[in-house]
Amino acid sequence: MSTYRAPLQDIRFVIDHWLQAPAAWAESEAFAGVDSALADQLLEEGARFAEQQLLPLNMSGDREGCRFHAGQVTTPSGFRKAYQRYVEGGWPGLTCTVEHGGQGLPLLLGAALHEVIYACNHGWAMYSGIAHGAYACLRTFGSAELRQAWLGKIVSGECLATMCLTEPQAGSDVGLLRTQARPDEAGGYRLTGNKVFISGGDHDLTDNIVHLVLARLPDAPAGSRGLSLFLVPKLTEQGEPNGVHCTGIEHKMGIHASATCSLSFDQAQGWLIGEAHCGLAALFVMMNSARTYVGLQGLAHAESAGQRALAYAQARVQMRAVARPEGVLAAPADPVIFHPSVRQVLWQSRALTEGMRAIGYWSAHLLDLAEQSQGAARHTLEARIGLLTPVVKAFFTEQGFQLASDALQVFGGYGYVTESGIEQTLRDSRVAMIYEGTNQIQANDLLVRKVLGDRGEALEALLDHVLEDAGVATDAEGRRWAQQLRVASDGLRAWVHGLLQHEDREYAYRAAGDFLQALAMVLLGHAWARAARLALMQADQPFYRRKRQTAAYFFDHLWLRLEYRLQCLQKAELPLAFVDDL
Amino acid sequence: MSTYRAPLQDIRFVIDHWLQAPAAWAESEAFAGVDSALADQLLEEGARFAEQQLLPLNMSGDREGCRFHAGQVTTPSGFRKAYQRYVEGGWPGLTCTVEHGGQGLPLLLGAALHEVIYACNHGWAMYSGIAHGAYACLRTFGSAELRQAWLGKIVSGECLATMCLTEPQAGSDVGLLRTQARPDEAGGYRLTGNKVFISGGDHDLTDNIVHLVLARLPDAPAGSRGLSLFLVPKLTEQGEPNGVHCTGIEHKMGIHASATCSLSFDQAQGWLIGEAHCGLAALFVMMNSARTYVGLQGLAHAESAGQRALAYAQARVQMRAVARPEGVLAAPADPVIFHPSVRQVLWQSRALTEGMRAIGYWSAHLLDLAEQSQGAARHTLEARIGLLTPVVKAFFTEQGFQLASDALQVFGGYGYVTESGIEQTLRDSRVAMIYEGTNQIQANDLLVRKVLGDRGEALEALLDHVLEDAGVATDAEGRRWAQQLRVASDGLRAWVHGLLQHEDREYAYRAAGDFLQALAMVLLGHAWARAARLALMQADQPFYRRKRQTAAYFFDHLWLRLEYRLQCLQKAELPLAFVDDL
Repeated sequence: MSTYRAPLQDIRFVIDHWLQAPAAWAESEAFAGVDSALADQLLEEGARFAEQQLLPLNMSGDREGCRFHAGQVTTPSGFRKAYQRYVEGGWPGLTCTVEHGGQGLPLLLGAALHEVIYACNHGWAMYSGIAHGAYACLRTFGSAELRQAWLGKIVSGECLATMCLTEPQAGSDVGLLRTQARPDEAGGYRLTGNKVFISGGDHDLTDNIVHLVLARLPDAPAGSRGLSLFLVPKLTEQGEPNGVHCTGIEHKMGIHASATCSLSFDQAQGWLIGEAHCGLAALFVMMNSARTYVGLQGLAHAESAGQRALAYAQARVQMRAVARPEGVLAAPADPVIFHPSVRQVLWQSRALTEGMRAIGYWSAHLLDLAEQSQGAARHTLEARIGLLTPVVKAFFTEQGFQLASDALQVFGGYGYVTESGIEQTLRDSRVAMIYEGTNQIQANDLLVRKVLGDRGEALEALLDHVLEDAGVATDAEGRRWAQQLRVASDGLRAWVHGLLQHEDREYAYRAAGDFLQALAMVLLGHAWARAARLALMQADQPFYRRKRQTAAYFFDHLWLRLEYRLQCLQKAELPLAFVDDL
Repeated sequence: MSTYRAPLQDIRFVIDHWLQAPAAWAESEAFAGVDSALADQLLEEGARFAEQQLLPLNMSGDREGCRFHAGQVTTPSGFRKAYQRYVEGGWPGLTCTVEHGGQGLPLLLGAALHEVIYACNHGWAMYSGIAHGAYACLRTFGSAELRQAWLGKIVSGECLATMCLTEPQAGSDVGLLRTQARPDEAGGYRLTGNKVFISGGDHDLTDNIVHLVLARLPDAPAGSRGLSLFLVPKLTEQGEPNGVHCTGIEHKMGIHASATCSLSFDQAQGWLIGEAHCGLAALFVMMNSARTYVGLQGLAHAESAGQRALAYAQARVQMRAVARPEGVLAAPADPVIFHPSVRQVLWQSRALTEGMRAIGYWSAHLLDLAEQSQGAARHTLEARIGLLTPVVKAFFTEQGFQLASDALQVFGGYGYVTESGIEQTLRDSRVAMIYEGTNQIQANDLLVRKVLGDRGEALEALLDHVLEDAGVATDAEGRRWAQQLRVASDGLRAWVHGLLQHEDREYAYRAAGDFLQALAMVLLGHAWARAARLALMQADQPFYRRKRQTAAYFFDHLWLRLEYRLQCLQKAELPLAFVDDL
């Protein structure tokens, strides 16, 4: 059976060449000791861990799922042991500061590692993937006592963490949540309420779990401005139960190995993180990295599905092809990879996946650069991150699902069968379009909050950057692609200009989904124009020759998707009727 | 929880008004006794049966799945009883001739009934849905003895049937199959070989099962011209086992309630259907109706998903909407159906689903008309059916999956949870893109075999018909839509003209997928232009007012998808490199 291998060559290409990250690290205070060789070594080790420890548990974890009995969740066989290996390897603290026991490495490397981990075992990674967000939140907003008590345990991996936001009536709209926090005599708080859809809300990977819980103080105003964030451990520091009860786990379409828990807080002891009523602000510090990580799940599924479709298409012989590669003799039936419809799937998969990798890693790299910057420079970087993040989250996860479905189709009937593994990828990938803010919410965030929020300033700067980079090309193809980018950027700018003048407040919301798609395609155009230019320098090597080919496929064929979205943006001006029932 | 109701009003609209089928029935010999009232009554009864007997078993059937033990398949609880009710209701013979014990009703009514059955329980319907194909095949090509022995049992529902084509090495390419048939002393044949992916290959709904098996005679030429079709019962007429062994069932992404079997034939007694080496021709008589039925599965999932998304969107309150319907007061949070991204999903779902219903039923109606016709008239009808069938199969099933995914997104996190039921729809719907000829094979069939096969003649006639019908419009909107159809048709004609002159044999195969999508959108344009014109006459009624609104949505927004596909067709002329590995 075909399997997944971490795409280290392309990861290296993006980090070293496309981003030129080692040069940026050398200039920074925090990462001065990190170079290309260290990054390489680390990613090779990480890939080995993921391929050897996590990949073998992916299908068994799906089949076995989590069990819930007497208030306790049991993860699938092997999960606890794999987590112990993860801890022994020091992976939980990879990108945490040295001060707190971490390795102080760039988030970019954490992102690359997580792409590979998600590709190997999305279900398992749901436990470890959230910890970094809790760390960032606690590190920035936690009191000295809280940091002292808990940060080290998260960094070492002794504790895992959760984010407890959702309640039955409060999903996308956290402002509707009802969990109450009341001050107790000891200067802490007691939390009472019910949370649902809590990933890793209970499990057996660690003894204790740190819950970050959004709740309402007694004097809180209604809505999202009345939310405060609390740290509520499963067990107190003394190891006693703390009134946090897992009341059940969901049966889901996919990520069966990830326990999606209902939690009941019954006078559970908690500590305020940050200011009262400022819980959302505290969560905001982790939002961009959390959403980028979810986007990487989409990338991971796209890569993994594409690899397996390629291998299957080379091996499966079925029907005579209309044309064959030079030198291949006629046969009663050919590998299906010769058939045009299969080649189209594989080229699309490559063009989208490798393009997403450049953009997703760029996003993570910008998070590192912003973290190292101050003042106006930091503001500029954050504005760019603000644009990239919703694209990475929404576009990547949608493509992860779509490309998994396309790959399944290459397998034919066998793809629909569990044994092939590809149907699990399709099921697992679907959730990423929903959680951490649905893709619709990402689209609104991008257009309404980010683009209209600064009257298009950050978007203009981003498009300028894209055109400037593409404009460096001196070869004929590169100049043609730069021109395609220019025309599209002009179209996007003109449309945003019109939107800014428009009086219909709903217009932006009707256009948001198409705008995100259009910007995503411009960014992928940037990824490919730049990759192709870099590839020119070593165009005789297969890897770089293929980069040129894939860039050409992207600008010849997939570019039409961008033009389609620009058309859709025009049509979004039309009023949209409300939907009635009959 | 929201549930499914058979969309009888729209079904009636398509049959009575869009198709004006009762008028055609009145003029035909076979269906002279069938009128609108009878059709109505029958569909109401059928919908009651499906909603009451099959729908309650849909989720339990998915959860329970089929069991395989000691060579026997057990279907989920309640399935056998529901099948007995189906038999008691006389449903198996609905569209079979009276001569063989059927009710002699139009295939169109069978199609409408099956849309509803598929929507209620796709897994269950896999057992009953194939029987009609076997009936058609046997009726046309079976010897008098075979017909005498088996037709009545199929029509009454005493026996169910299978189609045994696929083998491990022979999926899309049946020419590669190896099952052997050797003449025996008794003038029959003995079959030996292994078949896989056989839907309903074993089960407990009926005691006996009639397998239609594609196999190779000893003197057969290689490839698909050497295949013969045999009838092989599970039990002989004497009730003895016949050497057909079920060796296992597949674990699949969806339709868990449908047993997908591996069958081993060990000197099983069989009878030739039709001429030796002409097995594929015998299967061809059922291919159009079988593919239309699979298309109806896509329609059914789209309808069911859309209904449940609508109900959930009305009930789920989350976030303040930017705009509300007139007269609705501001609230802290609104039903999500007010949010533009949700409205877009629901309008798209309606426009595509109701458009598909008109085209899918048209396809079924044409099968009835062709069956009643002779000579040139029949040839013309068959050529049109030949164009519609691959579109119905491929476009409908793709939309069924896509719209189920869109509906799931409306449910948010809840949609990913089994309890919501919508994730099952997504899983179940996926298979229809694969079986009965993958959607890629449909696209090649449409463009290479059907369009290029008669040098575009049937396509020209179809486009003429579409334009002629749209040209009748006298209102401003109707004239605008007719003009949109004209421009698109001209584009399609010009492109086909260019293709016919082209020397690159692979061009058509590179374009096939986009061509199918483009033709599907033209057909949906036909559906909506015609529906909107009919709706004008009663535009004050909500049902018809909504038809007008949906038509406008289709031509304003979804039409861009057609323009996109026409662009893709141009790009398909570019050569497409073979895909290498690294």
